[in-house]
Amino acid sequence: MRKLYIIGIGAGDPEHVTMQAIRAMNAVDVFFFLDKGESKSDLVKLRQEICERYVSRPYRVVEAVDPVRDPSIESYTERVEAWHRQRALLYEAFISEELGEEDCGAILVWGDPSLYDSTLRIVEKVIARGKVSFDYEVIPGITSLQSLAARHKIVLNGIGESVSITTGRQLAANGLPPETENSVIMLDGNNSFKHLLGQNLSIYWGAYLGTEKEILLSGKLDDIAETIEATRREARQRHGWIMDIYMLTRPAVSNHR
Amino acid sequence: MRKLYIIGIGAGDPEHVTMQAIRAMNAVDVFFFLDKGESKSDLVKLRQEICERYVSRPYRVVEAVDPVRDPSIESYTERVEAWHRQRALLYEAFISEELGEEDCGAILVWGDPSLYDSTLRIVEKVIARGKVSFDYEVIPGITSLQSLAARHKIVLNGIGESVSITTGRQLAANGLPPETENSVIMLDGNNSFKHLLGQNLSIYWGAYLGTEKEILLSGKLDDIAETIEATRREARQRHGWIMDIYMLTRPAVSNHR
Repeated sequence: MRKLYIIGIGAGDPEHVTMQAIRAMNAVDVFFFLDKGESKSDLVKLRQEICERYVSRPYRVVEAVDPVRDPSIESYTERVEAWHRQRALLYEAFISEELGEEDCGAILVWGDPSLYDSTLRIVEKVIARGKVSFDYEVIPGITSLQSLAARHKIVLNGIGESVSITTGRQLAANGLPPETENSVIMLDGNNSFKHLLGQNLSIYWGAYLGTEKEILLSGKLDDIAETIEATRREARQRHGWIMDIYMLTRPAVSNHR
Repeated sequence: MRKLYIIGIGAGDPEHVTMQAIRAMNAVDVFFFLDKGESKSDLVKLRQEICERYVSRPYRVVEAVDPVRDPSIESYTERVEAWHRQRALLYEAFISEELGEEDCGAILVWGDPSLYDSTLRIVEKVIARGKVSFDYEVIPGITSLQSLAARHKIVLNGIGESVSITTGRQLAANGLPPETENSVIMLDGNNSFKHLLGQNLSIYWGAYLGTEKEILLSGKLDDIAETIEATRREARQRHGWIMDIYMLTRPAVSNHR
């Protein structure tokens, strides 16, 4: 039976890779990489470095260009669903054409496959289509969430309290989740924190976490929102891409910290 | 300058340990272990196994008995705060008495130091007391959250949606967080999911994740709540301890999955 590993490789530091991931990577015949194009070539290099550093047996790499999301589809969920269907066809072709009956393939995922990553949904779509049969296994990885917390030396939750993980899009549309004092915001390309001034929030922001380009900023949101926005803009221009994440905390939580 | 590493070692599988953690562990002169007593001796053994497997230089281990939370303090937060103060004294003694001026110490944390773990708060208390000076660094680790998701092969968030991480205590007091369809519940010793029947929820439950004792159950909460409760009770009796975690999803999210 063909086997597919979906392996979390951490948030940018090659040393985030776990022993479990290394063991799995060393059972792999073919790695499948979907690339977003030149602008994120740092990440492509980093992924190559991870393979070269930790895999000690011969392997093949198959690359494909990631489909682009169709901007003419208005609904976010439908746009993402359509994109997932296109990706599913690529994965299906990879499994049926590149993996022999006894071969082992792998997809390496930044962060963890369980959080804001589409790979597992796409693999389920491939299975639902029923054209290829294979086993699969998920290997967890360090998320940018954890990397952010570690680098700022903070705890994500107040004592006995909840934590919310949300997106820039949700934050812009709905504001901070009401029932929790600590929220982590991922996938925010639009500086959505700007809409939350005057609420005495604190922010812990990080970009390029775990890499040589890492930038950390923290303080009262009202004081540093503009600095973060300018820093993001400048860094994105300089490097051609940015991956960042931040935590917002309400004042009540600061007392527990 | 003395250095203290606070190292996440994953959720139970010794292979969850990252390369970063292994590198840090191999710089450590003295490991400091706070133990909760015999009932969790499996975890003590597992921690020893991690040190033996991955550390290739001589090291010392200093053990202390974890203070017990004072049940006469009624407020949960105050009870935990008082317990943290006691732990801070133990950490302070460890740093000042066991670490030489150039030595490196480490505290190994199950899961990740950023999520429902008190070590960072306690280290901040030690620093605030100002009796000992030291540098410290946080190394992130795989959480039981990620292990749960990987073993069930699920994504924690719906497409573009939020995830809430909360506790059994919060769930019993406040019900499910209102604004999100996926919630992960940690630290639930009281089967708080029992209070949520009749809402068409799905549950993904896991205990002893990543260990030989691992148990996974999933399905409609209404159908398997009793099975999970019985399985928990029986497993806790048999092993003398249990660590478990679960995700609850509302029906709307199931459509995205």
